[in-house]
Amino acid sequence: MEQAYDPEEFRRQAHAVVDLLADHLRDTGARRGPVLPPRAPAEELAAWANDFQGGADPAELFAKVVRHAIHLQHPGFVGHQVSAPLPVTAIAEMVAGLLNNSMAVYEMGPVSTAMERVLLAWMGTRLGYDDGADGLFTSGGSAGNLTALLAARQRMATRLGDDALPGAVIACEEAHYCTERAVRIMGWGKDGLVKVPSDARFKMRAELLDDAFDAAERAGRKVVAVVASACSTSTGAFDPLERVADVCARRGVWMHVDGAHGASFALSPKHAGLLSGIARADSVVWDAHKMMLCPGLVTAVLFKDGKDAYGAFHSPDAAYLFDANAKLDAGKRTLECTKRMMVMNPYVALAVHGEAAIGAYLDRMVDMARAFAARLSSTPGFEVPVAPECNIVCFRYGEGDMDAVRRRLLESGEFYVVRTQLRGTTYLRTTILNPRTTEDDLARLIRAVEVASRGSGSPQGRQGRQG
Amino acid sequence: MEQAYDPEEFRRQAHAVVDLLADHLRDTGARRGPVLPPRAPAEELAAWANDFQGGADPAELFAKVVRHAIHLQHPGFVGHQVSAPLPVTAIAEMVAGLLNNSMAVYEMGPVSTAMERVLLAWMGTRLGYDDGADGLFTSGGSAGNLTALLAARQRMATRLGDDALPGAVIACEEAHYCTERAVRIMGWGKDGLVKVPSDARFKMRAELLDDAFDAAERAGRKVVAVVASACSTSTGAFDPLERVADVCARRGVWMHVDGAHGASFALSPKHAGLLSGIARADSVVWDAHKMMLCPGLVTAVLFKDGKDAYGAFHSPDAAYLFDANAKLDAGKRTLECTKRMMVMNPYVALAVHGEAAIGAYLDRMVDMARAFAARLSSTPGFEVPVAPECNIVCFRYGEGDMDAVRRRLLESGEFYVVRTQLRGTTYLRTTILNPRTTEDDLARLIRAVEVASRGSGSPQGRQGRQG
Repeated sequence: MEQAYDPEEFRRQAHAVVDLLADHLRDTGARRGPVLPPRAPAEELAAWANDFQGGADPAELFAKVVRHAIHLQHPGFVGHQVSAPLPVTAIAEMVAGLLNNSMAVYEMGPVSTAMERVLLAWMGTRLGYDDGADGLFTSGGSAGNLTALLAARQRMATRLGDDALPGAVIACEEAHYCTERAVRIMGWGKDGLVKVPSDARFKMRAELLDDAFDAAERAGRKVVAVVASACSTSTGAFDPLERVADVCARRGVWMHVDGAHGASFALSPKHAGLLSGIARADSVVWDAHKMMLCPGLVTAVLFKDGKDAYGAFHSPDAAYLFDANAKLDAGKRTLECTKRMMVMNPYVALAVHGEAAIGAYLDRMVDMARAFAARLSSTPGFEVPVAPECNIVCFRYGEGDMDAVRRRLLESGEFYVVRTQLRGTTYLRTTILNPRTTEDDLARLIRAVEVASRGSGSPQGRQGRQG
Repeated sequence: MEQAYDPEEFRRQAHAVVDLLADHLRDTGARRGPVLPPRAPAEELAAWANDFQGGADPAELFAKVVRHAIHLQHPGFVGHQVSAPLPVTAIAEMVAGLLNNSMAVYEMGPVSTAMERVLLAWMGTRLGYDDGADGLFTSGGSAGNLTALLAARQRMATRLGDDALPGAVIACEEAHYCTERAVRIMGWGKDGLVKVPSDARFKMRAELLDDAFDAAERAGRKVVAVVASACSTSTGAFDPLERVADVCARRGVWMHVDGAHGASFALSPKHAGLLSGIARADSVVWDAHKMMLCPGLVTAVLFKDGKDAYGAFHSPDAAYLFDANAKLDAGKRTLECTKRMMVMNPYVALAVHGEAAIGAYLDRMVDMARAFAARLSSTPGFEVPVAPECNIVCFRYGEGDMDAVRRRLLESGEFYVVRTQLRGTTYLRTTILNPRTTEDDLARLIRAVEVASRGSGSPQGRQGRQG
């Protein structure tokens, strides 16, 4: 296998792939080719069948990967909350891939451990935390929310003893599914999550929080944490953080904010107010792979009281790994033992492009999303169920089958949008987070939806077919 | 931010970093520079301080990252079980970083979803599973072992009802700390893990398994799973899988194999016998970032009965994401919602270099480790506490302070070794997994330990100082 490490072979192959990716950036920027290549799953599976006898040409293999993938840097990508990564972060990933510094202990990741400390301190200040804050980076928002809730459970167990459990977590019915999943993982079952109804704007009705506490206690459960979303996934609704914080303070209960999507708005000059109250939370999850233009996964879990950063996991007695005195060993704080140099992505994005550019990007996305919603609302046949607070816009057109409309949009190759259900009605759902998307693209999307609706059973569609 | 996506800027920067990395591969291959640059943590932290005003030059930034990192492709890296990644996988990471296909749903990762299906089927056959097997990829062995144990808990809850819980998990005292961590996460506390003593070779004493079941039942717990290690972290000891399987079959209890390190030996022509019995396990964790030359994290969780692959997590009701009918949506099976194109690394490694080359690599590492242990045993002053079964070799020299010896070795820059404790005694610990490490390197390591021991309190060391 030693010959696989030949520097000149790597140099040749990697240069070729750099050109492949640069050309791909150029082509997607020019809206050439589809966002999501139309191909049936069975066909895709067949395309990658392999008996692993070796001999594949890397350049050909990667060219095929690029052709078959969904193209997030295409301006028509306005679907799920997954960033179109900054090109410089792809370079960072190559560096991280070769270096593979694994982080569990300081020695195995001196650079990324230092970057983590620097970035976590900086992120804490941006949330409004003081110097006592601390945190960790982990592999995604689901792992991050679980980590925060484990820390909350540990605080409760320390204070009241394990007998206080089984516990419960309170969240809005609009919270991401990973909160319910975390509660189930912790062994508290389906009933361990007490859901608070949402208001007309899909925000938590904070005035019903006390009812939720009562319901948990009637079921013999101790409330370990309240989870507020900043924001929700379906519609981008921000729960009323100040009011949640008031209730948590009054009851002495852990407040956690799932800011996977929205915590980045702390960097926004115009829209940081969406997060008012977040500094009162005991913990916050913040994904850099949603609104900080980084590839996944890179999730920060921040704790107001830095000691809680060690609370989620029993500090393990593992003589093969940890030095009992080494506070810098990241593995003591994270679900992961070996961990990627994930932090290099936001670090490099910020060091190269700067906080102001990220802030301007965030402002532009929200402005564009709000303008898009206004345009939809003023276009006959379109319905916008809720004015966007940030950059997630749901809508439907006429009475048609929005799933069928979506399929046709995707088949056209021009756009990638997703769907959701709100109070039983299906809507198209867009996240405006692609720096290459323009107002013109969104105007074209409106026309494309009109076209795709013809024949889908909408009044307009039926007229279109008849006409 | 649009200008950050300029293809020609990316092309220029990425080509420069390719040359940087190729030069780094050349230099480490020639043993130039230290494995781990000697620098105090405080100094490292200061080196990365940043106010994120932007303007950093990517080429300079990445050059500094490379200089400061630990160098896993240096032949002197024989420490933790973290692979020195194949250069082609670093290219794959760059592609994955730019494409950022996020996997939770099929549309967001058609290529990587297909690669996952292909690779999981292939890995299942290599373990000896039949066509009914299935699995998933997740972010590391800790998440993987947790996922498998959650599936085991779900099977138990389905069969006996939740009343059968709290549960317990049985594992050897030498099992990786993440098993205990998983049990704690699931809410079963410290006592949820029942430890079985190890024998003189640090393997689980399977004849004591029934005692462990009795102990769990006396404590009012139902045993949900037995975890066998293949292999243990400290010494690379393989638990007796056939005998564990016999007990699990007799008792109708889930058998899980933590094969994070050792499952790769299924690809070894000479040493696959270490895994005899693994095909009888209900689930197996297999890290491609340990012995398959991939960067982290890429962990396969394989289930003998493919239906169990959906058991760990309640399939979420998330209209913004999942189509109820879409079996290909990876997020239904994984802790992660958004997930990386992690599978591309083992896929590309195998497609380019082939299974036979990986097999030959594995054989060579084991052969070299065994030869190294034999050489240590026959060198005066060295003690090898247990003959290596695979490629992990522990040893100590004289009566000296092995932590001090290790520090001196690291300061020399020539080697990176780690340490562990076995029955209260500290040993140096090496994992021979670096394709660039030669027998000569290991012979030099022996001499370097002798030199570093001078003055460390060993008899030889004292003689050396006196002489």
